[in-house]
Amino acid sequence: MPRIAVDAMGGDFGPHVVVPAAVEAAREGVSIILVGDEAQVRAELAPLRTDGLDIEVVPATQVVTMDDKPGDALRRKRDSSIQVATRLVKEGKADGVVSAGNSGATVACGMFVLGRIPGVLRPALAGIMPTEKTPVVLIDVGANVDSKPQHLFQFGLMADVLARYVLGLENPSVGLLSIGEEEGKGNATVREAFELLRASDLRFIGNVEGRDIFTGDVDVVVCDGFVGNVALKLSEGLAKSMSHILKKELTSSWLSKLGVLLSLRAFKRFKRVVDYAEYGGAPLLGLKGVVIVAHGKSNELAMVNCIRMAATSVRNKTHEHLEAGLAAHAGLTKADRPAA
Amino acid sequence: MPRIAVDAMGGDFGPHVVVPAAVEAAREGVSIILVGDEAQVRAELAPLRTDGLDIEVVPATQVVTMDDKPGDALRRKRDSSIQVATRLVKEGKADGVVSAGNSGATVACGMFVLGRIPGVLRPALAGIMPTEKTPVVLIDVGANVDSKPQHLFQFGLMADVLARYVLGLENPSVGLLSIGEEEGKGNATVREAFELLRASDLRFIGNVEGRDIFTGDVDVVVCDGFVGNVALKLSEGLAKSMSHILKKELTSSWLSKLGVLLSLRAFKRFKRVVDYAEYGGAPLLGLKGVVIVAHGKSNELAMVNCIRMAATSVRNKTHEHLEAGLAAHAGLTKADRPAA
Repeated sequence: MPRIAVDAMGGDFGPHVVVPAAVEAAREGVSIILVGDEAQVRAELAPLRTDGLDIEVVPATQVVTMDDKPGDALRRKRDSSIQVATRLVKEGKADGVVSAGNSGATVACGMFVLGRIPGVLRPALAGIMPTEKTPVVLIDVGANVDSKPQHLFQFGLMADVLARYVLGLENPSVGLLSIGEEEGKGNATVREAFELLRASDLRFIGNVEGRDIFTGDVDVVVCDGFVGNVALKLSEGLAKSMSHILKKELTSSWLSKLGVLLSLRAFKRFKRVVDYAEYGGAPLLGLKGVVIVAHGKSNELAMVNCIRMAATSVRNKTHEHLEAGLAAHAGLTKADRPAA
Repeated sequence: MPRIAVDAMGGDFGPHVVVPAAVEAAREGVSIILVGDEAQVRAELAPLRTDGLDIEVVPATQVVTMDDKPGDALRRKRDSSIQVATRLVKEGKADGVVSAGNSGATVACGMFVLGRIPGVLRPALAGIMPTEKTPVVLIDVGANVDSKPQHLFQFGLMADVLARYVLGLENPSVGLLSIGEEEGKGNATVREAFELLRASDLRFIGNVEGRDIFTGDVDVVVCDGFVGNVALKLSEGLAKSMSHILKKELTSSWLSKLGVLLSLRAFKRFKRVVDYAEYGGAPLLGLKGVVIVAHGKSNELAMVNCIRMAATSVRNKTHEHLEAGLAAHAGLTKADRPAA
């Protein structure tokens, strides 16, 4: 049974949302360690039915706030819920950690407490976004800036494993984000990454453009963390703005209000497709342990999905598959390989 | 009266859409030169009322297709409508050029036929996008990759002039696209550009993130052309996908279809906000002459808007304002200043 440490204090809604989500995941067969303020966590647990469930509470006296800088959180809040939870993974007491708290701090904890899988040059954050068809994995969405070609190549390799063994996609296609589909388009880094991806065993389909991300025609989109972070946040912002505008227009007259009433079910389905809550958070790939960075605004469903994703990742041995993938492609990244 | 050369052959719909748009612009007091296949252009002009309008036809025997590579189009199609139209500006016979044809070729023609305004390091393409409030200028959206800090700074300077003298914004705010709002976030290039922008006379508001682009709270967003191009195309793709999904959901039952019927006016207004046709194309800034790159899918309204934008740019002497801005900030870009 996968054992997941959950940062009970993380996210905009804290234990009130995280604890019930963790209990739900426990019902589905996940072993849960709730990490945080013991009194608060137990208070949230009290009214819930937890008989026979494998739920443990591990106390942590500090909380990383959204304003804390990742480095400060790491050094000065050693007893924070996110750091204690991550240490449980390091010590072998848990297989993975999920947090909806300060995402920079979660990434920093993962990187410095757990460390990289040997052969991984740079861990990367995989954004999973809804499309018209199956979800698309955008990697990296912000763990790295100024990525080199070998880094981009490994991002593709790691996301391929995620797509296969966590999202359940068969033979996922991998595209390289650029500003033109033809080979040779893009900047110098992208052009070199193109060659590495082409020389690999991945199902590389060449360059893709911004407009291709949401069509659902490509499963993995590889890019530098600067570009990916802009793309992810832009998408969230635009979806929100479009919903605002639509809502404003649709409630501007009684006739259109009546229309909305009649179309309510359709709007709800639309919202579900657009809503990120349906998907789990962003896995931080390449570390010695599973780390899932949940959205700060995660509701209960989103949190359950994140814990499920962590559990699936453990069950399907993504780390072994990743190590195998790295070994098979070691030649392509040798030049820059650290003495790990 | 501003004199605008219009590539009559450009865009998905060619002369059939471009010619009526040009005639409409002529009615509003723009002097028009239609460049393209003379027979086709005259055939489109024939049924339209053009008495007393200042419209000239200049023949061009070649057409750049969407598949032509920019370099090839430049070298091998010297009598193409876009190249002939751009040469009219070079020769002082027109003040600006508008084309909805192959955008790479339009940019290349602008760069190589017209040349840069002295002091401009790199011309940049300004994307103008709808938001919940006033439109936002995203610069650069694809004319450059691997931009240096001085380039990013000048993009901000050029877009400030555009926002003031073409979009009519008073004291526009300028943000630097990054992956965190705090100073010091982003990659090395962005951190250096931050300092240049801060030292300038621009109303620099610091770093902005992807999610801030569409709120309408910032007027100019500065970024490298790789990032900007991804952002622009992603926005188009996402808006399209969201509309698809909404349409599919809303027509899935007779009840929601009825609802849509009642809300039709609201949906039309929504579409107008989202629709790029409302805005002109993307101005290519920094050249000796006005160049507007229209969207290939431009309809008649979009084309009229593009010609209007070119005319406004000429009327309001944006070039003089840009030269003054460059002169005032020459110290900030000196190190990299070419011997122009």
